[in-house]
This record gives sequence, structure tokens and C-alpha cells, in this order.
Amino acid sequence: MRLRITCNLKFEIVVPTPFILMLRPRSGSQQWIERQEYELTPSTAVSEFTDNYGNLCQRITAQEGLFSIATTSEVVTTEYSDQNFGAHFVEIQNLPDSILSYLLPSRYCESDCFNDLAVTITQGQLPGYNQVSAITEWMRATISYLPGSNNEPLSAVQVNHKRYGVCRDFAHLGIALCRSLSIPARIVVGYLYNLQPMDMHAWFEAYIGNRWYTFDATQLGSQGGYVILGLGRDAADVAVFNQFGPSVFPYEQLVKVERIAEF
Amino acid sequence: MRLRITCNLKFEIVVPTPFILMLRPRSGSQQWIERQEYELTPSTAVSEFTDNYGNLCQRITAQEGLFSIATTSEVVTTEYSDQNFGAHFVEIQNLPDSILSYLLPSRYCESDCFNDLAVTITQGQLPGYNQVSAITEWMRATISYLPGSNNEPLSAVQVNHKRYGVCRDFAHLGIALCRSLSIPARIVVGYLYNLQPMDMHAWFEAYIGNRWYTFDATQLGSQGGYVILGLGRDAADVAVFNQFGPSVFPYEQLVKVERIAEF
Amino acid sequence: MRLRITCNLKFEIVVPTPFILMLRPRSGSQQWIERQEYELTPSTAVSEFTDNYGNLCQRITAQEGLFSIATTSEVVTTEYSDQNFGAHFVEIQNLPDSILSYLLPSRYCESDCFNDLAVTITQGQLPGYNQVSAITEWMRATISYLPGSNNEPLSAVQVNHKRYGVCRDFAHLGIALCRSLSIPARIVVGYLYNLQPMDMHAWFEAYIGNRWYTFDATQLGSQGGYVILGLGRDAADVAVFNQFGPSVFPYEQLVKVERIAEF
Amino acid sequence: MRLRITCNLKFEIVVPTPFILMLRPRSGSQQWIERQEYELTPSTAVSEFTDNYGNLCQRITAQEGLFSIATTSEVVTTEYSDQNFGAHFVEIQNLPDSILSYLLPSRYCESDCFNDLAVTITQGQLPGYNQVSAITEWMRATISYLPGSNNEPLSAVQVNHKRYGVCRDFAHLGIALCRSLSIPARIVVGYLYNLQPMDMHAWFEAYIGNRWYTFDATQLGSQGGYVILGLGRDAADVAVFNQFGPSVFPYEQLVKVERIAEF
Repeated sequence: MRLRITCNLKFEIVVPTPFILMLRPRSGSQQWIERQEYELTPSTAVSEFTDNYGNLCQRITAQEGLFSIATTSEVVTTEYSDQNFGAHFVEIQNLPDSILSYLLPSRYCESDCFNDLAVTITQGQLPGYNQVSAITEWMRATISYLPGSNNEPLSAVQVNHKRYGVCRDFAHLGIALCRSLSIPARIVVGYLYNLQPMDMHAWFEAYIGNRWYTFDATQLGSQGGYVILGLGRDAADVAVFNQFGPSVFPYEQLVKVERIAEF
Repeated sequence: MRLRITCNLKFEIVVPTPFILMLRPRSGSQQWIERQEYELTPSTAVSEFTDNYGNLCQRITAQEGLFSIATTSEVVTTEYSDQNFGAHFVEIQNLPDSILSYLLPSRYCESDCFNDLAVTITQGQLPGYNQVSAITEWMRATISYLPGSNNEPLSAVQVNHKRYGVCRDFAHLGIALCRSLSIPARIVVGYLYNLQPMDMHAWFEAYIGNRWYTFDATQLGSQGGYVILGLGRDAADVAVFNQFGPSVFPYEQLVKVERIAEF
Repeated sequence: MRLRITCNLKFEIVVPTPFILMLRPRSGSQQWIERQEYELTPSTAVSEFTDNYGNLCQRITAQEGLFSIATTSEVVTTEYSDQNFGAHFVEIQNLPDSILSYLLPSRYCESDCFNDLAVTITQGQLPGYNQVSAITEWMRATISYLPGSNNEPLSAVQVNHKRYGVCRDFAHLGIALCRSLSIPARIVVGYLYNLQPMDMHAWFEAYIGNRWYTFDATQLGSQGGYVILGLGRDAADVAVFNQFGPSVFPYEQLVKVERIAEF
Repeated sequence: MRLRITCNLKFEIVVPTPFILMLRPRSGSQQWIERQEYELTPSTAVSEFTDNYGNLCQRITAQEGLFSIATTSEVVTTEYSDQNFGAHFVEIQNLPDSILSYLLPSRYCESDCFNDLAVTITQGQLPGYNQVSAITEWMRATISYLPGSNNEPLSAVQVNHKRYGVCRDFAHLGIALCRSLSIPARIVVGYLYNLQPMDMHAWFEAYIGNRWYTFDATQLGSQGGYVILGLGRDAADVAVFNQFGPSVFPYEQLVKVERIAEF
């Protein structure tokens, strides 16, 4: 499907503030970027680099006053997320070198604390896709999805205790549970067609049967329409805006995802 | 300055043909990509990756029949190229690790064959920027710039023998001469505002005084308006389309670079 | 100074167990590896790769039975750690791209929770080296160094609460405090000459005045004799042995660091 | 098999000379480094980095006077080189991103000039391993192996014209022929047990059936005993010593490879 995404952020800057943005989606195996706009107002010097995870990152220093970021993308992405029940667990000794770091605990995914829970949740499941599917089902049944409930990232331990959270919280818990079973898992931030209420979104991927699969416990079914902005170990790696110095939040954050005609 | 660039390529494909394209400019320290369009007709599966030099590369397999690539970019780039007479030669032991490979000979830049010539050309020059400037002047005086004269890349040795060439040939010769003096140098391919006749363009950069500087012996003065598509050791690394199997050339190649209003 | 290091680990393996080891020191700007031995008994297939931080990692699967790792290194390292009071804080916008990830919170360094404490500790200090020095002094005065007290890694929040810990705990707390002030910081694991009691060791580095400096709150003075095995964001990245499946601890872990003659 | 390798180089340095050395073998999928010594006399500051190909490179500046490098390694390597007639050609669109650059022409491997010859040589062969095997056989039959005949690297075109050469020349020609058929190929430099006369050695690898295979037209049969020091696109990338400024050659170069007991 083809999607047009608009994401606009407006800030009021009080002291010059360095930002690292991750707002330029890049083409990959799952999506193709056909059109892209990225405007900073006022116009600002930017340098762009590729981080360790392959994400395009934009470095700027916003000056005092109003500062706005306006992005639009037209993206071809898949109509459905691949599902693959039965896809097998990859033995650690067979994982590619570059995947190994997704087994380690990270800031918001204390996988070292979740082995007992993960074993309980996945009791009787075939190792691999079915385990991750059981984890996702368990989160759907156990954790309440309350968009807007948590402003700051929570760690998996905190989410598991609170029993409610935003999309990012679900991703962190899902990742921690997967890694505790030695299944590599990573967070993805981006956009989702038809998300209710519309906003940026986060979900996770697990490495099974020699590739990454998408999982999203905040949604039902296997719809596609996902557009990736960045991926990494957890939200610490993939803040769509990472800002340093006194906290600045956008006073306006507008996200729109429309389906557009194929041609 | 702000530039709008259109680059359209049309091919007639006889057998399914794998391509690696380098047609998506990326933001860097010298340019900011504000708008970008990239359309393949017919619509074709693409995967995109970042190569060793940081270039975005698009992998596709074009199917039989007409195949066209249409790209548009709006880019903020500098009005003037930085010049810096006197900028000092960086001793090899002080070069960053990541720069060292730009000292080595490469397919089209046989720097191992040019030391005598380079020493002659740069006689009496301060080591660094002034040497590269002398090399550029020497090429302007010695090699005739004949756009369209050579279809296939020539190596620096061949260019030096022929005494005429296209922009890419000048870049190869300049690079070989610089490297033979232990000055790191690399090719850049992209677009140039006001290029006559308009087409894709190639020039080179040399690493002096701890940064890269732009040199272009096919042009006079220090105008800016350069837009980078890719960079690497020489044309072997940065073909804007690298195609495998029986040769395919575009039957139409349209490049347009217009200046547009700042806002 | 020249050091000879012996590190032997012995395990009793009950089920075939994948390990990722980080026991081969590599030469860098601060150390030169002159001699190195690395033996696995029984002889075992190994593949080695370089991780995102440049560490050499050895992948093996240990089979049932006794399994031992014996390593020896002879290393030239510095007699004193560089100190540089007054070295300046590097503004975020001036940090190299590759350093930025050392500003982010990580599994055991919840830098997002420490800003108030860090500001208090470094009150009145010049931004940069002096701040990190104040943090180190504060830890020396406040946290008790109790080798052997904690088996599992603690996070900075936990260490700050417990008020005692092992070398790794000091490193995590120091790193979290630095990052909360936007000073890049990373953990180092390795060996230290004259450590009491002798064992593996961990400390941290902070990026100030455009380079990394060594800090170690568990030691007094500025002695050198540090030998680096691995570095990363925190202990999650640089386990000297990372083992998957049911926990296995070495039943014998012998570390010896002797000074040997220069020649 | 276990091999002990000694490689000693002695230079007389007239002006301070920067070197980049590639004399520290690293463990990989085909070899395990058990013991290693690396001594510079006089003792010299070294920094070590990993290049784009994963090779460990040592940077030094040798001062005036005698300068010697003494290295010893004990390495476990395979008794036989894998052969795999029938292993299939990998379609370009299926090659991993990281392999693609081994399809491009490079300084000493002008693969763009060899398609006709390669097609002739491999007439009737199954695409893949059998083609590379035919190329190797053709070189054995056509090019005379004359150790010591060429001091400077020759390019594949030159080797094909001269009809004799050293091991490196064979590697360059084999690589150029493979790449001209869209088979990724790379040079390897290192040591070979029982090489006559004993010296450093070079051979090549081709990527077939989703992995790299070893080919060496200077040797008969499929003996193993290869120890890798470095790999890259051609000799420009993997000089075991790359030296800048006025040429310096070792006045003594001693290589010894002995088989030692397994334990």
C-alpha cells in the first residue's frame, strides 16, 4: 500500500538546544520511500549521519524562539505483516554476529529479570515464532493499552508492574521477554496506518527463522501499513528527537497517515 | 542556495538486469535534502543499504521492457566552495584511521605511477592546499575538457596520455596526483548548478588541514552549487548506476538543475 | 611499563553452552600487545568477530564436561594515567558522531535519573574534567568499595542506594553521573597492576577536551598499569564471558598481573 | 593442523617513515590464533585499528636507524582446503550487501577488461565453483609461476600479457576473471605451510554457494595450511607493510612456517 505521512513538530526554544532527530525514514527491505520532505523553520544548519543501527540521524542546534519541523513522506509498504507460525528458534551459535547485541539487556529492557515469567508465558509453545506470539497474546490480555498514559519511557520491569502503558511500553516488555528466552528482539519507532488515536508509534521485531518479524501487541490481526523511522535496542537508541539540556517538549505534535492511490 | 534537481533515466531492458543505483542524495555536512522523490516505473521491489563510504545504494532487478527512474531533489547547498590557501598538509601519522584508505591507489587512480609528475607540478608550493590548487591549475592548462568525449571511465594514466576528457577523467587524474603526494583524495559524483552542458557531474575532494575541500578542474572560480550523490575512491565505487550482465545504457538521460527561491 | 597477565577460567559444563568471550586484549592507542596466548581445553571451534565497539569477541559452544580457558598477555601500557584538570567540556554539537551514543542511558547506567545529584556533586566545578574528577571524589567518599560484594551487575540507581559495591558498580554510577551532565562516558573492563585483591577489573572513561580520559574511583592517585579487554556502554556490552542458557560460573578464576622487564 | 609462523623484517630507515602494517593475524572462521608475539625494536609507539575489511592494522612511525619487526604466531588451521564442485553461482540480487564491493574492478584487477577471456576459459562449465576451478586450471596451464620475478604488484592485464608472475600476480588475474563473470572475489595475503620457496604468500577467495572458497593457482591439490594476515579487494588494500615517503625495502625478510604438535 502507499501511504502519505505528515509529521509536524513545533517547539518554543528558550536556550539554544542541541537536538538529534530521527525523522527521515529510509528505504529498506520492507519499505520504499518515494517522496520525502523535511523542512526546518527557521532554516538551520544540519549535519546528518548514520548511527550504529543504520538509522539516519539529523544533528541541529535550535536557536531561541519558535522552531518547527515539518516532514512529509510517501512510502510504499506492505499491506499485511508477515506471520509465520512454526518459524524456528535460531540457536545462539547460528545467529549472525551483527544480531548478537539484540540478545543483551538494555536500558528499558531488563531481560535479565524476566526468564521465569517468559518461561511461564510460553509453556508448551514451539521455540521460535510461537513463543513470541504467545508473549504478544499475553501482553494483550494482561497489559492495558492506554495511549497518552506515560510520557517518559518506562522499563519492562516498570511496565510489568504498572499493567498499563503506551505502545513503547508494550514494545519494551515484549523485547525483554523475548531476549530472556535468547530470542533477539529490537524496538521499531515509526508510523502505523489507522492507528487510533493517530500519533507516532512503536512496536517490536523478533529474529526468528533467520529473519526479523514484526510484532505489535497494541493491535489486533496482522494488518500492515507500518512505516519505520528508526530501530535499535530500545527507546534510548531511537528517540525521534533526542534533546540535550533543559527539557523541551513540542507544544504541537501533528501526525497524519493517509492512504494514497497506487499508480 | 536552494536547488531543484531532476534526473530521469530511461532504459529498455532485454533480460532481467540487476542494478545498484546511487541516485538518492543524502544530507551531510555540506548539503541538506529538503525534498526528494524517487520513482521507478514499473514499480519494482527495492532494497536500500549504506555502503562502506556512507552512500545510500538501491538494489533492484529491472524486468524486460521499458524501465524508467525519475528522481527530484530540493537541496540547500553552499553558494561558494570553501577555498583555503595555506591549509596545511596533514602528516600521515596524524590522519584519522578512516581516511587512510584514500591514500591507496585504486582502479582508475594509479597514484603509484604519478609521483614524479606530481612533484614537478607542485614545485615550490607549500605542502597542502596550495599543492592541490597547483594540480588543479595544471590540469586546466594541460587537459582539454571535452564533455561527452569518453563513455567508459579512463584511468589517470590514460587521461594523462590522451590529454582530453570528461569531468570524471579530470577527477581521476587529480586524485592520482594528490595521493602520489600522500594527500588523501576521493571522487564525488553528483550535480552542479550551471554546468555546461547540463549532465551529471564528477569532481574530487582532497583532505587538507583536517577536513575535505572541493576541487574541480573543469570549472573556473570557486562557485558553489554542488550536490553530492555519492563519494568513494574512484568511479568504480560510485557508479550512479552499476548494472550487471549485458551492458544497458539509458536511451534517455535528462538532468535539470534549477535555482529556486529561499524562504 | 610492561605487564604479563595470566587469566585462567575453568568451568564445569552440564549442557552444551554457547559463550561469547571478550578475553583477547587488542592494541589501541593506550596499549600494545606484544605477546598473547589463548588456549581452550578441550580444543573447541571458535569464530571471532569485532563488535560495534571494536572489541574482539570469541564465539564458542562449550561441550559437556570440564572446560577451561587459559590466556596470557604481555602488554606495554602507560606508567601513569593522564590527568588533565581544566580540560574542557565538549559541547554536544561538537562531539564526533561516533561518540554520541555514549550520552544515552543504558541498561546499568540510568543517566536519565541522575541529573539533580550530578549537579549537586559538581557544584562550582569547571565544566569538563573537573566535574568528572568531582564525581570520582564523591564516589570515593560516599560508596564503600567492597570487592566480591555483588555477583550480578547492579545499575547505577541500585548502587547509589546500596552505598557499597564492586569496581563495576563504581563504574556504572560514575558513567550515569557523567552522562546526566552530557559528558560521554563508557565502561572499560580489563586488568590493573597491583589491584587488591587481584581479579578482573572495571573502570570508566569520560570524553573531555576531545579525547577519552581514564577514571577509577576504586583507586587512589593516578597510577597507570591498566590493560583493556573491552569497552562499551556498560557491563551489558562488555561481559568478559557472556553465556546463554542455564547459568554457569567458573569454579576457578585465576588472574595474575606481574611487571616484567623492559628491554 | 597447528603451525608456528615466524616472520621477521629488518629495515634501515633514513628518514622518519610512517608505516601501516598488517602483520597480526586475527582469528576468524578458518583459523584460531593460539599464540602471538609482535615486537618492534627499538620499541615504538603503535596505534592499531580495524580497517573496512576487518583487518587489524598497526600504525607506526619508524625513526632513523635500524628498525626491526619480529612476529611469531601459533595458529590452528585446516588440514585441507574445502572444495565443492557444483557449488552454485549466487545471483547478484541475492548477494549480501557487504559482498557487493567485491564485484567491482579495483587497482590491480581490471575486471572490466576480462569478460571475453573469462567466458572463453569457462566455456561449458556450470556457473559457480566449476567456473572458478576452470579459471584456476587455466592459470596453472598458461602462466608460469616464478617466485621473486616481480617486485611491484602487476595488474591482471599486465600479468595476462607477461605470462609469468609471483603468487600475488596469479591472485590478481584470478580475481579479475572471476569478477568479470559477476563472481565476487578477493585477495588474501598470509602464509602457507610447505610453500616453496618459503615466503609470504597471496591467493584468492571466490564467493560461491553463499560462502567464500579458497583458490590458489600456484599450488596443486587442495592442501590446507593457509594462515590469513589480511584480505581485501587487491594488493592495494592488503600490503603487509604500507610505507609512505621514499621507498624502504626490508634488507632482511625471514619467514618460517613449521608444523607443531597438536595437544
